[in-house]
Amino acid sequence: MNEKIFIEECTDILEKVITKKPLVHHMTNYVTVNDCANVTLAIGASPIMSDAIEEVNEIVSISSSLVLNIGTLNDRTVESMIAAGRKANKINIPVIFDPVGAGASLFRNNTSKDILEKVKINILRGNISEIRYIAGFNANTKGVDASENDKNNTCQEAAEIAYSLAKKQKCIVAITGATDVISDGERTIYIENGHPALSNITGTGCMCSSLVGAFNGAAPDLPLQATVAALLCMGIAGEIAYEKAGKFGNGSFRSAIIDAISNMNKNILSERSRIYEK
Amino acid sequence: MNEKIFIEECTDILEKVITKKPLVHHMTNYVTVNDCANVTLAIGASPIMSDAIEEVNEIVSISSSLVLNIGTLNDRTVESMIAAGRKANKINIPVIFDPVGAGASLFRNNTSKDILEKVKINILRGNISEIRYIAGFNANTKGVDASENDKNNTCQEAAEIAYSLAKKQKCIVAITGATDVISDGERTIYIENGHPALSNITGTGCMCSSLVGAFNGAAPDLPLQATVAALLCMGIAGEIAYEKAGKFGNGSFRSAIIDAISNMNKNILSERSRIYEK
Amino acid sequence: MNEKIFIEECTDILEKVITKKPLVHHMTNYVTVNDCANVTLAIGASPIMSDAIEEVNEIVSISSSLVLNIGTLNDRTVESMIAAGRKANKINIPVIFDPVGAGASLFRNNTSKDILEKVKINILRGNISEIRYIAGFNANTKGVDASENDKNNTCQEAAEIAYSLAKKQKCIVAITGATDVISDGERTIYIENGHPALSNITGTGCMCSSLVGAFNGAAPDLPLQATVAALLCMGIAGEIAYEKAGKFGNGSFRSAIIDAISNMNKNILSERSRIYEK
Repeated sequence: MNEKIFIEECTDILEKVITKKPLVHHMTNYVTVNDCANVTLAIGASPIMSDAIEEVNEIVSISSSLVLNIGTLNDRTVESMIAAGRKANKINIPVIFDPVGAGASLFRNNTSKDILEKVKINILRGNISEIRYIAGFNANTKGVDASENDKNNTCQEAAEIAYSLAKKQKCIVAITGATDVISDGERTIYIENGHPALSNITGTGCMCSSLVGAFNGAAPDLPLQATVAALLCMGIAGEIAYEKAGKFGNGSFRSAIIDAISNMNKNILSERSRIYEK
Repeated sequence: MNEKIFIEECTDILEKVITKKPLVHHMTNYVTVNDCANVTLAIGASPIMSDAIEEVNEIVSISSSLVLNIGTLNDRTVESMIAAGRKANKINIPVIFDPVGAGASLFRNNTSKDILEKVKINILRGNISEIRYIAGFNANTKGVDASENDKNNTCQEAAEIAYSLAKKQKCIVAITGATDVISDGERTIYIENGHPALSNITGTGCMCSSLVGAFNGAAPDLPLQATVAALLCMGIAGEIAYEKAGKFGNGSFRSAIIDAISNMNKNILSERSRIYEK
Repeated sequence: MNEKIFIEECTDILEKVITKKPLVHHMTNYVTVNDCANVTLAIGASPIMSDAIEEVNEIVSISSSLVLNIGTLNDRTVESMIAAGRKANKINIPVIFDPVGAGASLFRNNTSKDILEKVKINILRGNISEIRYIAGFNANTKGVDASENDKNNTCQEAAEIAYSLAKKQKCIVAITGATDVISDGERTIYIENGHPALSNITGTGCMCSSLVGAFNGAAPDLPLQATVAALLCMGIAGEIAYEKAGKFGNGSFRSAIIDAISNMNKNILSERSRIYEK
């Protein structure tokens, strides 16, 4: 690809997030929901969290994108997620699905299947274990974190899974990890930004999905670029945060991630980005 | 008003919070609940969170005030809120209602109406969009944040809404924003403290309601002063936090807000307060 | 006791947490759940939060320990907790029970009784008010924090309660406070580490239980040592955090606790530990 043009599109979308301030409807877990709200605000968008079946249609109606995250799913919220997803499809706003822990339980597996069957997902984001499961491969999911086995998969394997699943599901598939791999079933983009310490803080995956929601809410017509831009921001924020606060420990690092997201701009994004296409 | 006397009453209530350590029963959303607990502890009060219908009567019975916040309402918790509110009325402890997102969905609207009909609310706190809706005006609610249209309303309009709604509901109405407006239907107090960056952190509104709960729990006989004192603390904490950490970003700023609340005292409050009556 | 040998066992278990990275299944409250996840990651273990009846059996099956915390219990989650606890007993992984607010409501009391009757608890951790209630004494529970009356109980009284309850329940009983007291019904260990400011931050008790889960997940055969090691880490982290950030306020202190946990190692633990046996 012409990397310069691609990065320009990404930085344009970052500007759009700030000027449009898209409302991102989150149906997410109670573990990292506060981080999701704060990262959404930090990048310049606006979060709303709602999972009541009585109101999800209306909340979707005023939103620019919908993030479905099954981190702490239960029967009540799953029903609401499907209703919200269908409404989002009707009014044509992007739906982001984060299949947290897919592969770890039948309930998560069946819910993921159900959501993918009943809702047109625009962007599917997860770790390698989760996406492997969704793609129909044997996953080695260990809870909600990528398993060590799966992490040892080569980046090339991740790319093959992302590419074929994107083609099959007709959506963007983003697998985050040491190298992030994003495919729309035609092109596959690799992001080398990020820091291993991000996996020592809860919610950094969920925050990725929130940012993907914010960027796609601002630029629903450029889902590949919007998704890449979102993950670039998170990866770069992780690097900056580790440089500033990694030496102090996890608490300071966590706070510095939000600092770095709130200070993100076109220059930082274009100067620091390490992406390529294969 | 005699501003000096008013501020003295406010600082006296701050001291009472510290000496009485009122237990503030929160029925609140899962997004900002941790911040609500920490801000309550930071000011010197004690938080308890409980929303099970099986126990709310008992928890209310040992509490000094009750905060109802519908940020992530569902049918189960709404039922519990009304039961808890009624019990609080019976034993005569202050009930604070934070109608998060009122105007954004029928479910939030009907729940707000239901709570206001079935529970005697002592203090109603929200942003201009939410309170406009409650007051029967057309709101321009955009999710859970005040809409840009509504934010452009003059402070005078907010004051009129607060004043007339307070008179009608026979309670304190507090509209927080660039200028906070607090009315008991007779007097209307304006607070100029605060910082625009507070709206970039999730939960700063909810934390206001928690502080209002703490201060009214300590001084239930002076609801206007207790509410003003609580909002003064939050506004001043926002200013101090921004001075110290605003330049670093949202994560540091958020942490500095709790720092500033935990360091609040009579001197800071009286020296920094910028309030007036009209 | 030979304190040196005991501390060596504790530091060995700390190393095991880091090398084994046990998965700690949490069924916990929505107030402090994020802190629980982050403290578990910070010590080197892996957290998973799940409370859906549909999947708790499977999640327990892949976990190394189970933490039950009734901070914001409701009928749905209580049912799931008992199912999960029974499964944990069947596959013989340690179950940690944190009876948050026991003594404050019939629902919490009955739930605690129910859990203790239906699930074999390996480690029971709470504050003095909660454990007094469980032990059948009159508790003076004031919400979820230990009451002032109970805090004035001498350390010796706590030790007697821990010892006799441990004997009766055939489990480890840990009462955390100014002095932590841990007994297995034969030996009773006292930890003098910690800082009073820990009680000004929400979730420090819950985080203790998470660490107890992590350490017992790594060393299920040494429950007394594992529990002592976990509480030592929290106490020492509190001291270090206060030295570094106490002067700034509660927000900075909170962040510094996670920093200190993430920097914990054998040397810090053995040099700083102040434990004894009586």
